[in-house]
Amino acid sequence: MAPVFSFRVLHRDGPARCGEMTTAHGVVQTPAFMPVGTCGAVKGVTSRDLLDAGAEIILANTYHLWLRPGDQRIARLGGLHRFMGWDRPILTDSGGFQAFSLGARRVITEEGIRFRSHLDGSEHLLTPEGATDIQAGLGPDIAMALDECLAQPAPVSEVRASTERSARWARRCRDRFLALSEEKGPGPFSGTVTNPGQAQFGIIQGGTVPELRALSVEWTLAIGFEAYAIGGLSVGEPRDTMCSVVEHTAPLLPADRPRYLMGVGTPLDIVEAVSRGIDLFDCVIPTRNARNGQVFTSEGRLTIKNAKYADDAGPLDPACTCYTCRTYSRAYLRHLFVAGEITASVLNTVHNLRFYLDTMARVRQAIVFGTLETLRRSLRTTFSRPLSDS
Amino acid sequence: MAPVFSFRVLHRDGPARCGEMTTAHGVVQTPAFMPVGTCGAVKGVTSRDLLDAGAEIILANTYHLWLRPGDQRIARLGGLHRFMGWDRPILTDSGGFQAFSLGARRVITEEGIRFRSHLDGSEHLLTPEGATDIQAGLGPDIAMALDECLAQPAPVSEVRASTERSARWARRCRDRFLALSEEKGPGPFSGTVTNPGQAQFGIIQGGTVPELRALSVEWTLAIGFEAYAIGGLSVGEPRDTMCSVVEHTAPLLPADRPRYLMGVGTPLDIVEAVSRGIDLFDCVIPTRNARNGQVFTSEGRLTIKNAKYADDAGPLDPACTCYTCRTYSRAYLRHLFVAGEITASVLNTVHNLRFYLDTMARVRQAIVFGTLETLRRSLRTTFSRPLSDS
Repeated sequence: MAPVFSFRVLHRDGPARCGEMTTAHGVVQTPAFMPVGTCGAVKGVTSRDLLDAGAEIILANTYHLWLRPGDQRIARLGGLHRFMGWDRPILTDSGGFQAFSLGARRVITEEGIRFRSHLDGSEHLLTPEGATDIQAGLGPDIAMALDECLAQPAPVSEVRASTERSARWARRCRDRFLALSEEKGPGPFSGTVTNPGQAQFGIIQGGTVPELRALSVEWTLAIGFEAYAIGGLSVGEPRDTMCSVVEHTAPLLPADRPRYLMGVGTPLDIVEAVSRGIDLFDCVIPTRNARNGQVFTSEGRLTIKNAKYADDAGPLDPACTCYTCRTYSRAYLRHLFVAGEITASVLNTVHNLRFYLDTMARVRQAIVFGTLETLRRSLRTTFSRPLSDS
Repeated sequence: MAPVFSFRVLHRDGPARCGEMTTAHGVVQTPAFMPVGTCGAVKGVTSRDLLDAGAEIILANTYHLWLRPGDQRIARLGGLHRFMGWDRPILTDSGGFQAFSLGARRVITEEGIRFRSHLDGSEHLLTPEGATDIQAGLGPDIAMALDECLAQPAPVSEVRASTERSARWARRCRDRFLALSEEKGPGPFSGTVTNPGQAQFGIIQGGTVPELRALSVEWTLAIGFEAYAIGGLSVGEPRDTMCSVVEHTAPLLPADRPRYLMGVGTPLDIVEAVSRGIDLFDCVIPTRNARNGQVFTSEGRLTIKNAKYADDAGPLDPACTCYTCRTYSRAYLRHLFVAGEITASVLNTVHNLRFYLDTMARVRQAIVFGTLETLRRSLRTTFSRPLSDS
């Protein structure tokens, strides 16, 4: 099958790009934000809600789906799209990050990551080949290579060793991916390739060391993936650090491929990264914060539990047209949150996702019209304010 | 304001009736099932989901809304319809049942029910006048009189005393309701009447003693309400007992008013009661069971957690066209339930409500075509089966 993955840049505003990424399940306008469906569902909402919010692509977590309900079960059921009732693009991560952060007694060797499941303590080994096979069964439109997630801060020698290992793992992931493609046959793989149009992205590591980032780019580009992600950021470092790594690394990546900044971030993080040439984002912030009663609005963040909203008859965000803002008052949403109602999570999530996806639409529009800097300053003003409730 | 509440019977099939109940917020086709929105939200779903499911009227709990966020707060915000984002009919109960069942250290006197809040231990007194005032502020289309909920079984002398007290309380509720109407002015009431078209239903008590049920009907009809409910059932008695009380009591109630059987029940309970002349129902079963993974289908009940659904690519109910059944497999729904995802509650609730409301539509159709007995036998067969999973 001919590769279906492609990308084209339509507009530029400085390093920022507005483009179209074509996948086996359709087109994504970039810069794009991917809501996170950790266990195969974006927490609190349905596929219909995601469409309503304007989501064009979502992310699911390989680690979670591999352990439960199992990648081969999902493959037998026709793959992740059919399983999740979502027929637009999906990206899965490699499972490495969660194996590091959730797995117990993890041991990293050249072979891969050995760990015990956070669910039942069972022992598992995640190798570059395994991560590739699992994603072949899940069948997302974009699979990610397995990389090593090094805890920061770490001495440069460790960062270098880890970056080198990630490059070796990337090579093994790509070899496996190519072996699974129709040209080369499935090799020792006993699973199912549920999405023959799948693309695979490599991941740039190198911590905060510019030379190592540059080396990682060199090694990863030499392997050759459909596109590239910047990993190892959004792990607690200051925004300035993240920005400077992105500013250094993004221009080293091919201009004709989308650039994905993993795990980022707040609206402000996103616009800063877009203005440095990033095209794809994912983050649990809009959904997790929604469940915790933290709402993003055009006027800044808002803590719905705050007593001052108890009698507030207005919508969460007067500038928003999502179902929540069209239908319910802050007073009602505060009441549902305080009462612990599930519907509070649903309605806050519907809003936060719309806010994020609307923000991405504004970002794309600003790039088309050459006004990204104005938008960046405006978001900086809105989200640098102290919380409106504090 | 002229009374807007009315009811007309359009078709009969034995004692069963198919009709239209008109309220200040529109028409309800009867027999009707009211999803329960305990704290001002039907747990797990939005108003949009309720409309999708075909709900024409919902119930909210006075006790919960009175204690939190407060009836006068809801009144200031324009009443329950605006607060909940639901512009179709609403019925509220009187708060008595929850004050009995949830309140701590409750003491019942002729004055009313004194209890401590299950939320914060604060002391409250719910009187017939208070229950009427609270519901005037909440503004449902149908308010319920405060009655005494006697724990069963009880000696006949106690049932009689309680039934007499309920009748005295009903008188006080009606007097207060009339005093709040525009003709007589608000009296000592300092709140707001948010729905001038509100109707008030009286409640028949009398336990399982036919003579006391008949007396309760006599006393309550003498007071005169827009319509009448049968209370004190669905509190753990066998279905046969419930059926015989309904069979005895329903014919004593005016044929030109809707009859509401409070807190009932399973699909089978409902069709048995409809065939004895009942027009309105409410119950937490479809929503609570959904959250616990118990699903109603045209083939009987189904426990979604059961391992046999892990690879089941089919819909919950092949005969259902709800969003859940159109979009997701049993395998996916089982996965979400096992993973503890909020979306599992949402999707199961969407389905169970549709099943209940579809069942009511089938009941109404059967009455129109004179085939209720056939439907009753069919439901009896479906829901008398052992669980399909057991």
